[in-house]
Amino acid sequence: MNEKSAFLNRVAYQMRQWSIKMTSKAGSGHVTSSLSAADIIAALFFDVMQFDPDQFNNPNNDRFILSKGHAVPILYAAWRELGKITDEELLSYREFTSVLEGHPTFRFAYTEAATGSLGIGLSIGVGQALAAKQTKRDFKTFVLMGDSEVSEGSVWEAAQLATFYTLNNLIGIIDCNRLGQSTPTMEALEGDAPERFKKMFAAFGWQAEIVDGHDVSALVSVLSAARESADRPVMIIARTKKGYGVDLFEDQEGFHGKALNEQQEKEALAQLRERFKDAHSYPSTSSGRTAGPNEAQAKLGKTERGTGCAFTSEDEEEKNNGWNSRAENQGGVNSQNASSVRPELVEGYERISLPNPEYKKGDAIATRKVYGQALVALGAASDHVVSLDAEVKNSTYAELFEKAYPDRFYQSFIAEQNMVGMAIGFDRRGLMPFVSTFACFLTRAHDHLRMAAIGQAALRVCGSHAGVSIGQDGPSQMGLEDIAMMRGLPESIVLYPSDAVSAYKLVNEMANYHDGISYLRTTRMATPVIYDAHESFPVGGCKVVQQSDRDQVLVIGAGVTLHEALKAHEKLAQEGVSIAVIDLYCIKPLDVTTIRSVARASHNTIITVEDHYLAGGIGEAVAAAVSSEDIEVHHLAVSHLPRSGKPEELLADAGIDAQAIAKKVKEVA
Amino acid sequence: MNEKSAFLNRVAYQMRQWSIKMTSKAGSGHVTSSLSAADIIAALFFDVMQFDPDQFNNPNNDRFILSKGHAVPILYAAWRELGKITDEELLSYREFTSVLEGHPTFRFAYTEAATGSLGIGLSIGVGQALAAKQTKRDFKTFVLMGDSEVSEGSVWEAAQLATFYTLNNLIGIIDCNRLGQSTPTMEALEGDAPERFKKMFAAFGWQAEIVDGHDVSALVSVLSAARESADRPVMIIARTKKGYGVDLFEDQEGFHGKALNEQQEKEALAQLRERFKDAHSYPSTSSGRTAGPNEAQAKLGKTERGTGCAFTSEDEEEKNNGWNSRAENQGGVNSQNASSVRPELVEGYERISLPNPEYKKGDAIATRKVYGQALVALGAASDHVVSLDAEVKNSTYAELFEKAYPDRFYQSFIAEQNMVGMAIGFDRRGLMPFVSTFACFLTRAHDHLRMAAIGQAALRVCGSHAGVSIGQDGPSQMGLEDIAMMRGLPESIVLYPSDAVSAYKLVNEMANYHDGISYLRTTRMATPVIYDAHESFPVGGCKVVQQSDRDQVLVIGAGVTLHEALKAHEKLAQEGVSIAVIDLYCIKPLDVTTIRSVARASHNTIITVEDHYLAGGIGEAVAAAVSSEDIEVHHLAVSHLPRSGKPEELLADAGIDAQAIAKKVKEVA
Repeated sequence: MNEKSAFLNRVAYQMRQWSIKMTSKAGSGHVTSSLSAADIIAALFFDVMQFDPDQFNNPNNDRFILSKGHAVPILYAAWRELGKITDEELLSYREFTSVLEGHPTFRFAYTEAATGSLGIGLSIGVGQALAAKQTKRDFKTFVLMGDSEVSEGSVWEAAQLATFYTLNNLIGIIDCNRLGQSTPTMEALEGDAPERFKKMFAAFGWQAEIVDGHDVSALVSVLSAARESADRPVMIIARTKKGYGVDLFEDQEGFHGKALNEQQEKEALAQLRERFKDAHSYPSTSSGRTAGPNEAQAKLGKTERGTGCAFTSEDEEEKNNGWNSRAENQGGVNSQNASSVRPELVEGYERISLPNPEYKKGDAIATRKVYGQALVALGAASDHVVSLDAEVKNSTYAELFEKAYPDRFYQSFIAEQNMVGMAIGFDRRGLMPFVSTFACFLTRAHDHLRMAAIGQAALRVCGSHAGVSIGQDGPSQMGLEDIAMMRGLPESIVLYPSDAVSAYKLVNEMANYHDGISYLRTTRMATPVIYDAHESFPVGGCKVVQQSDRDQVLVIGAGVTLHEALKAHEKLAQEGVSIAVIDLYCIKPLDVTTIRSVARASHNTIITVEDHYLAGGIGEAVAAAVSSEDIEVHHLAVSHLPRSGKPEELLADAGIDAQAIAKKVKEVA
Repeated sequence: MNEKSAFLNRVAYQMRQWSIKMTSKAGSGHVTSSLSAADIIAALFFDVMQFDPDQFNNPNNDRFILSKGHAVPILYAAWRELGKITDEELLSYREFTSVLEGHPTFRFAYTEAATGSLGIGLSIGVGQALAAKQTKRDFKTFVLMGDSEVSEGSVWEAAQLATFYTLNNLIGIIDCNRLGQSTPTMEALEGDAPERFKKMFAAFGWQAEIVDGHDVSALVSVLSAARESADRPVMIIARTKKGYGVDLFEDQEGFHGKALNEQQEKEALAQLRERFKDAHSYPSTSSGRTAGPNEAQAKLGKTERGTGCAFTSEDEEEKNNGWNSRAENQGGVNSQNASSVRPELVEGYERISLPNPEYKKGDAIATRKVYGQALVALGAASDHVVSLDAEVKNSTYAELFEKAYPDRFYQSFIAEQNMVGMAIGFDRRGLMPFVSTFACFLTRAHDHLRMAAIGQAALRVCGSHAGVSIGQDGPSQMGLEDIAMMRGLPESIVLYPSDAVSAYKLVNEMANYHDGISYLRTTRMATPVIYDAHESFPVGGCKVVQQSDRDQVLVIGAGVTLHEALKAHEKLAQEGVSIAVIDLYCIKPLDVTTIRSVARASHNTIITVEDHYLAGGIGEAVAAAVSSEDIEVHHLAVSHLPRSGKPEELLADAGIDAQAIAKKVKEVA
């Protein structure tokens, strides 16, 4: 065995030991899934990947995404070996006060992607690899997947798109350990899983290679070659054994996510020592870390591209004083500011203030079209802006951006999950992704949006064709649950313009929101411009568009229902009934102060009206916000499955048109 | 050309004509997508498929799913040719009063699956094909997809599972017309799309064949062979042209979903006549329908398997008096009871009343485990019950059912979208599917659930591991938006038991709910049994578990928070503060009457406490329900991104534990 392999085997051995210790200490966690991946991680982090562990956010670093997030002990163990986590911290895994969570989150500063819902990592990797090309950088993106998660459709969306975009800078690895949580994998039950996966990825246009996942030398060889792929993405299918190295559970069912008790832990560590005798006797630093190339070697290893970890086998002196000893000087990850990730990423973003648009009051224009127009303006204001659309660019008007900036437009085809995954990757690499499709089809990407929120990604999302007002296409094309879905994402903001001016300004606001997902809900039909072009629409506000000193009710509308509310206002005025009307252009965060104040002046009575189901929509948001006060709230919302028809017929059928509003006002006033 | 081909060409020609007329009349709709599929539909409906159009629900009929739902004009035109839709009805397409919606829904009695969100049809087809095997029937399931939708991951989940389950009774067809809505398809941009698709499906284990999609004779040949596949699913890749038959738009971009104006329509129909001269001059019935085999022939064509439409070329006399003339006698589809679909399907279901379970008060047992136990009991009570699980059966306890009824358990592996799609297919074919996975991972199938609701499918869904109380695994594994998602499905019911008895009874209730999706939210941790085994838990009810004549506040909890509320009750009682406590085991529909009445007796003050985000959760549901009354509602819910930790730490961190409740009570009492 050569020196490099001995070193890597030692690292893998150390990481295996720690994976056992961490999970046993925690009393839960996925030790067997970690052990199967140990050699892959050793080869990647300690030889193949070119990155500087001291500058995690160096834009030239190779990136690593642990798609099989439950195997995070092995990732933490790797960063311990890299000197960034203290032993004590490592053993705090899964504790409330620790940043080392049960699945990777950004509370751990060396996380590349929040994972834990399977089948998402490769989508994010596609985004990172595209971002590399967009920003003309040579870094590579490595994504480690489990074999079970390959059944997720999201993986195959990514596989198709990676080929379409010729992502020769994307390398997937399948830790093909045969066993899932409760059963062998589908492919393992059908025959030789690695051969099947190879055929499947090859048919999707990937270079696919099978390797012994416990042979570090073979891994280095195949991964290094993959790193230099000329013309296509590469999938490395690593034949591994779950729990490799410990007889107690190696390649056995029933040990997924099972931690060992004290006695078992002792046995397992002994078995490990026995199995990896050479690795066990390999020299360590005083801190117990594997002795790697020393500081000087690390520097030699660095290229101007920011490389830090490439092993330099020619120069082996001082190997006992490895660069890993830097670890102790850092104080570990728990002392780091966990919230530092996003500020660092968005450093480059200055606040964008677009000039006022030129829409004129009374002109009819669809807010979805304005989305496209504003996006073009943002594209001019910032090179960071990229647009992704799921094959409806002529409906969402993302096509306007494509025409203006074809090299910053990414066609995601009908693959909404991957579109959102790609956007996470773009965000992570410092670009500003705007994604668009029909509001209803965003439900296809709900889990990806959920994980994006957990990963603090600042996605800008536009859902067009909201509500029954789309008309003839029928219920399958109507977004009627998107407000609820988007409100439920931590740190999200939810915007819903009713006219061109507010739509334009709100798209601008999205560009300036970096703390989470911003959602813009747009309407299919043209609506009249009601605002002066100079008006501003700050996040967290609303507009009082009608108010008098004798209002009997406050009607809160948004989007298409605002116009119905205004019609009702006019109609009722003719009958001598006065109502206040609020345009709730920002649904989250809610401007409770204004709502409360106008409601108080309107007989403490509110009617909300929305082109959305009641659950989680505007009515419930408002009701909950004022529910501890003496304010009545009545709701008009879509309460039954809609159908095809003319928009006005459907608004009437749902009981959310001007007539329904006027009727309700008379009932409650 | 032989007689059969001449007949099929004529049918296709007629259907093309009508597709143009319908969309032109409606002023919207997808004519070009219909024209590319006309010959495929002709071959399927008028030769290959074995079914009786007079008995649409005959369980032996071959089934057809239009996955590319936007091409529904061609489906309606086919049913006109089959005599089930009058010409006048056909021209009511997309009108409010018509059952012929813009995408197929069950308001049209001959719909097999509600579609319109792409990439779902094949999943449903997998379910139907499995149902055929489960019920030991020989019918085949045909699924017509567009080429654009093949980019959806859901398709590849279905592709893997169809191979795994050796579905030789499932035939997919790709209408490979090169053009999507706004761009050529991904595969078309990369080269020869049909060859690429063939390679991809073959690698996934399918028999894949390319055919000229405008040659009815070739189509009949390849589809008939596919119908007899011995050992695997078959994908027919039909080379077609979008808008085939009309020069105006054939194979051209920019015509997706575009209806023709009057002048264009005239031109198009003329071009069609010119192009299909022979078909145009083929004899018709007096009603203008294509003259097919006559009544006698149709009967000849029938097998005891319920076949109705097989063309019998030997006997061609009386072809001018086709069986299609039956059409006129039926009065058309608009006169049919659109809501008849479900009752017909559930005819076979008698109400199930399981014996009381044997849980004892005080025993600790997780509601997720009770789900599995109750499912076993249901399996004994009804052969209709099948269980599907997404590779977490040992966590959801679906494994108990698998052990008891291995032949009725379907492992869906980590493919939640396909699991739900399969369940839709099972339901459609008269089985009673229960699907289970972690509540959070149901978000992956949100669009499929949405389409299931549009399709009135009575899915029984269990989401386990709800809320922060799962503990150490961290936020990626916590269902915190599932209540909102499930409440937002039309006709859904949402159940959330807090103990074993209520869980058991509620699973029983799910079996008796046939009008839509029923959702059961279960908890990871064991909770004490608080109810007597004889208590009942009707849908739409709640339990008043603590009440006195001096309650200062009503606390509403559910699941794990009910136990926190009970602890708070005890703690506060010691301090002399009395509260009422409601167990909201049914969140939708909400028992407003009881809530209102208890609140009125508790100083008109409610505190809701839930292990879920506020948006669309219990707090908002309750607030909205009483928002027009003089009742204060305060909310305790998860308001920030959680982390890993012990359940009790996380409940405290989220402010939803007993202590937080007690504190809130003191604040507001």
